[in-house]
Amino acid sequence: MTDSARVRGRRPAQGEPVVDRALSLLATFDAEHRTLTLAELSRRAEIPPSSALRLANRLVDWGALERDDAGRFCVGLRLLEVATLAPRGHGLRQVALPFMNDLAEVTHQHVQLAVRDGMQAMLVERLSAHQAAPVDYRIGGRLPLHSTGVGLALLAFAPKEVQEELLSKPVYSEPDNRLIAADVLRRTLADVRRERLAIFRREDEHESIVSVAAPVFGRDDVVLGVVGVLVPKRVAQPRRLGLAVQTTARGISRELGAAATRL
Amino acid sequence: MTDSARVRGRRPAQGEPVVDRALSLLATFDAEHRTLTLAELSRRAEIPPSSALRLANRLVDWGALERDDAGRFCVGLRLLEVATLAPRGHGLRQVALPFMNDLAEVTHQHVQLAVRDGMQAMLVERLSAHQAAPVDYRIGGRLPLHSTGVGLALLAFAPKEVQEELLSKPVYSEPDNRLIAADVLRRTLADVRRERLAIFRREDEHESIVSVAAPVFGRDDVVLGVVGVLVPKRVAQPRRLGLAVQTTARGISRELGAAATRL
Repeated sequence: MTDSARVRGRRPAQGEPVVDRALSLLATFDAEHRTLTLAELSRRAEIPPSSALRLANRLVDWGALERDDAGRFCVGLRLLEVATLAPRGHGLRQVALPFMNDLAEVTHQHVQLAVRDGMQAMLVERLSAHQAAPVDYRIGGRLPLHSTGVGLALLAFAPKEVQEELLSKPVYSEPDNRLIAADVLRRTLADVRRERLAIFRREDEHESIVSVAAPVFGRDDVVLGVVGVLVPKRVAQPRRLGLAVQTTARGISRELGAAATRL
Repeated sequence: MTDSARVRGRRPAQGEPVVDRALSLLATFDAEHRTLTLAELSRRAEIPPSSALRLANRLVDWGALERDDAGRFCVGLRLLEVATLAPRGHGLRQVALPFMNDLAEVTHQHVQLAVRDGMQAMLVERLSAHQAAPVDYRIGGRLPLHSTGVGLALLAFAPKEVQEELLSKPVYSEPDNRLIAADVLRRTLADVRRERLAIFRREDEHESIVSVAAPVFGRDDVVLGVVGVLVPKRVAQPRRLGLAVQTTARGISRELGAAATRL
């Protein structure tokens, strides 16, 4: 019987709690914690060190984790091998990448590819021209649906239930934390749907950033993701960029088999 | 007690076999099997359907797997989120990508970034120009160390033990399955080390491909990966490409903090 099964009084026969514990070890890693000692792993996952070590060793054996020369743990290549099979991420990415390259070349900026995962946007690809100003969005990272260009484009074309769930609670802009009135957000989403283009201005202490994003359609009129460009406000010409982003989104959609009526 | 613990007579107390079984579900997916029914999952993982479903549901709850409208399983975005934290894959990739873009632009071909994982090369990034001839290497895929450009470059700069392990058994070229004499391979590796460049010609029924690859160094003179170009033989000018590939590898190495003496 596992410790957690004993504690929670759960039926231990199938041993699933131990699977959850193993997965919780994977979940302790993030962009700021790519390498963890056993003690850190144990503390962050809230699993006693002895169990954490046992579980981590299973994950190391399989290749989901790796250990460095100092014995610290990090995410392993085997996980990358499996993760690249995710149809929603890498299938889309394979088709989109050459088009994204073109967009990065002509704009000299950051180009993003994102999909919706529940109530968040997830960046599945990012290309950056050498000249592009540094930004801290990373692949695999999550973004709010209501405070980014790619997020707004995803939200505008998401099922009605998703939009209503988001609108059912107060929505605050990020990072400046201002309340966004529900009717304002509704109007924004209607605009994005009509224009097939989301333009979002992110005001920041350091530099204001404009993101411009357009939906990518697959078969059956389903939005599979969005492609967007991120530019510093001082160089941004959102409408001009919009044409390039929409052209890119149409190219990807056509490759993905979107009906001509959607293009 | 889990079925496998009972069968194998293993101590069930810690419940790790169930972790192995959960991981074996993840391992059933590959490039030809990105979506699997429960029956396929169960058969491929050699786990009874009832246990397979229970374990798969844990993985779905966490996001490692997802189910489509037809109830079939596929790899989930959450796994991509965690996998992108792998320092050996995505850390390198983030630095390499703008340089790889440049190389794809000037060559109009496929550009690869690979790392060594045990006795194989693993592709962590691939960029393809629109005009590039289709090839079937995919990101997350594995390649032989001795029968690809990126593989030879990785092997040449791998620890002596890795080279000797590979050379201790007969080595056959892929895909044409000819025996490669150990002394020939040794000479090739010495050439690659001296020139900092691997050139490999892959003869194929359909089209012969040339791959040209160069090592990427990090701090402490360690080879972190290799960058390469893949071109059809009819358009290949390997030496000319070699200069571009070496230039790209040096750019990435400098960004990674390689000592100037290594550049």
